[in-house]
Amino acid sequence: MNAATARLSVNGPRLVADLKALGSIGRGPGGGLDRTSFSAADGEARAWLLGRCADAGLSAEVDGIGNIVVSPDYDDHTAGRPAVWSGSHIDTVPNGGAFDGALGVLAALECLRRIQEERPALDRPVRAVMFTDEEGNYAHLFGSSALARGFSRTELESLTGRDGDRFADTFAAAGGNLDAATATKLDPAALHATVELHIEQGPTLEQLGHDIGVVTGIVALGGGVVSFRGRADHAGTTPMDRRRDALTAAGALLVALPEVASRVSERAVVTSGIVMVEPGSANVIPGLARVTVDFREAEADLVDTLQTTIVDVAREIALRYEVAVECDFEVTIPPVQLDATIQATIATAAAARGLLYSSLPSGAGHDSQNMAQLAPTGMIFVPSIDGRSHCPEENTAWIDVENGANVLLDTLLCLARD
Amino acid sequence: MNAATARLSVNGPRLVADLKALGSIGRGPGGGLDRTSFSAADGEARAWLLGRCADAGLSAEVDGIGNIVVSPDYDDHTAGRPAVWSGSHIDTVPNGGAFDGALGVLAALECLRRIQEERPALDRPVRAVMFTDEEGNYAHLFGSSALARGFSRTELESLTGRDGDRFADTFAAAGGNLDAATATKLDPAALHATVELHIEQGPTLEQLGHDIGVVTGIVALGGGVVSFRGRADHAGTTPMDRRRDALTAAGALLVALPEVASRVSERAVVTSGIVMVEPGSANVIPGLARVTVDFREAEADLVDTLQTTIVDVAREIALRYEVAVECDFEVTIPPVQLDATIQATIATAAAARGLLYSSLPSGAGHDSQNMAQLAPTGMIFVPSIDGRSHCPEENTAWIDVENGANVLLDTLLCLARD
Repeated sequence: MNAATARLSVNGPRLVADLKALGSIGRGPGGGLDRTSFSAADGEARAWLLGRCADAGLSAEVDGIGNIVVSPDYDDHTAGRPAVWSGSHIDTVPNGGAFDGALGVLAALECLRRIQEERPALDRPVRAVMFTDEEGNYAHLFGSSALARGFSRTELESLTGRDGDRFADTFAAAGGNLDAATATKLDPAALHATVELHIEQGPTLEQLGHDIGVVTGIVALGGGVVSFRGRADHAGTTPMDRRRDALTAAGALLVALPEVASRVSERAVVTSGIVMVEPGSANVIPGLARVTVDFREAEADLVDTLQTTIVDVAREIALRYEVAVECDFEVTIPPVQLDATIQATIATAAAARGLLYSSLPSGAGHDSQNMAQLAPTGMIFVPSIDGRSHCPEENTAWIDVENGANVLLDTLLCLARD
Repeated sequence: MNAATARLSVNGPRLVADLKALGSIGRGPGGGLDRTSFSAADGEARAWLLGRCADAGLSAEVDGIGNIVVSPDYDDHTAGRPAVWSGSHIDTVPNGGAFDGALGVLAALECLRRIQEERPALDRPVRAVMFTDEEGNYAHLFGSSALARGFSRTELESLTGRDGDRFADTFAAAGGNLDAATATKLDPAALHATVELHIEQGPTLEQLGHDIGVVTGIVALGGGVVSFRGRADHAGTTPMDRRRDALTAAGALLVALPEVASRVSERAVVTSGIVMVEPGSANVIPGLARVTVDFREAEADLVDTLQTTIVDVAREIALRYEVAVECDFEVTIPPVQLDATIQATIATAAAARGLLYSSLPSGAGHDSQNMAQLAPTGMIFVPSIDGRSHCPEENTAWIDVENGANVLLDTLLCLARD
């Protein structure tokens, strides 16, 4: 038996069937998936996932914040040793896609099924995990943040969802318990390493014609809200030269954001995804216009530069349109370096399977950035067709799904052995 | 007794007290009045108004769409002759002011009280009126539109409010009856003339230092929605040069609108009051951005020019940002000429009271534009402090309130005599 035949591989068709099954839960009116965390559809998806674990003879534990940790039944001899975790999330953004998160959870589940079936000799336990609310219906990377740092009761009670609901109410209605949620935190000693398989969500691998992305780190992220305050006046009776139109100023900022990005670096991205206007009547000049800004760069310094540039531009626009401006930025999330050894393991696995790979940073946030605070962490990307994500068109070729899952399996087995 | 002492005048303090009392109903969290039609606050204001009529011994009738028509008790000898109407509305925009509409209703009520008290010899009945939903929670100039043209049951059943509620449901809950609403329409033969006192809602009278505005007409109004359709993509993973950001294009249109107005005429106004973004997530590039546009000019031709210019500019922007664009415009509301004889009557009354006046068009829509389809119609403006309207700061000096009501009373008495 040579190395090639000895190598375990995933059951591709079974994984694809799981992705299709999960992708049918929560289909919304926009054609995409509406499976925001703790929605009815999210509950259905969680129940389906627990069912699939039971089907495979795997045991699943739900922690106090709703993260699901799945174990095979044969690794008692490794119990107590630090574990190798792999997983992602199954919640989606509104009108999202069927691969973001779902691939990482179902590929980890498939790896665990293969381990359960083949019972390879391992020195450490392997776990598949589903993190709660990665998409931040209540808090960005919610479940993995709980594992990495925990949440106080006051924090949990202050959270509200996209629909304006209080987390505490929705969580209680879903059978959750705030005391258990507050107690949820992971002891880093329990963890040896973590690996997450994810779609790239961008066009780079596809453009290169590569199969596998070895993720070097997660870019630094800044964001917040720029508010222009003018004067609400009647749209019919206020001459143009007497207006203090907050929305015209906001429009000028929206136009300037791409210029800000290109001024700072070639890789920097700046996005406004939400505009709020008050009073919000077609025949009233807006007195208040608030735009969200989201800006990212692999280097923390350049994220700071993006922020100061946005402030400068917003102030200059406010002067030009004679309105007031306020910039409220959240604390910048620093860049996360992923583990170099695990990167090498992923690259070796890809090469051994004859796959083309390249290293690249992740422009999106992932649970791995929290897990990297607890243990050495790696991420594997597979190509996104046309770079689409967070939309109904989000897609990845089935061959890439299978390739990614195989590289994940290789990596997990390597990490689970001394 | 000379002409000056013979002249009736309003009871200024009583009118001011009424404005203050009505201005305390529906105070919202923004500091302004939230008295949108058929809201609880609107119901409270209607009940208060009916109580004030009863206090004065006036009789009030509510028609099938909720318009209130108030009569004195002594004019039986003129019954059956075409009446002189005066009124406005008491509903407000969200977070609106205490004078828009309220002044016209309460000044007409005060005129009727003085007529009831002094019983001058008149040849025609005088009526005070409160029109339903002028601010278009369900339909622009709703109550007066019903009087002028009527609504079919299908039309009424299709109406929805700002909060997404169906008019039919809210109306039924308020005790309304759709059959009676459908039957509501005014026979023009019942009407001799109408006059509406209103705040200017703009800065012109204040800038001129004049007391009274003689309204020449109501400007033509166009409006609709411009929709840019790009591509929803992940804000972190999509390079700037691969984006089809619908909101950046919308921003460019917002910046261009003031230029469009000044290109067409000095008096033209163009406003965007609402922006809707989809999917509306801070970390997703907007795939759809819709902006409302409202444009007005005294000449109908120039309103058409505004519309075609907006379309041209929107198309050019769409090309520049590589997104699709769609323009959905409502039918332009033609300009309304107010009655020249009534204008002269108003000017004469103002002059006789030693008030400075000037003629000017109304940039805002008013119930008078519907009433002008039924009978000769006039409008009187009083100054708005700092030109503010549709906001908590909306204000008019008490002396201007009293002056306006006196000119209204003079005009009504003149119109009610052969």
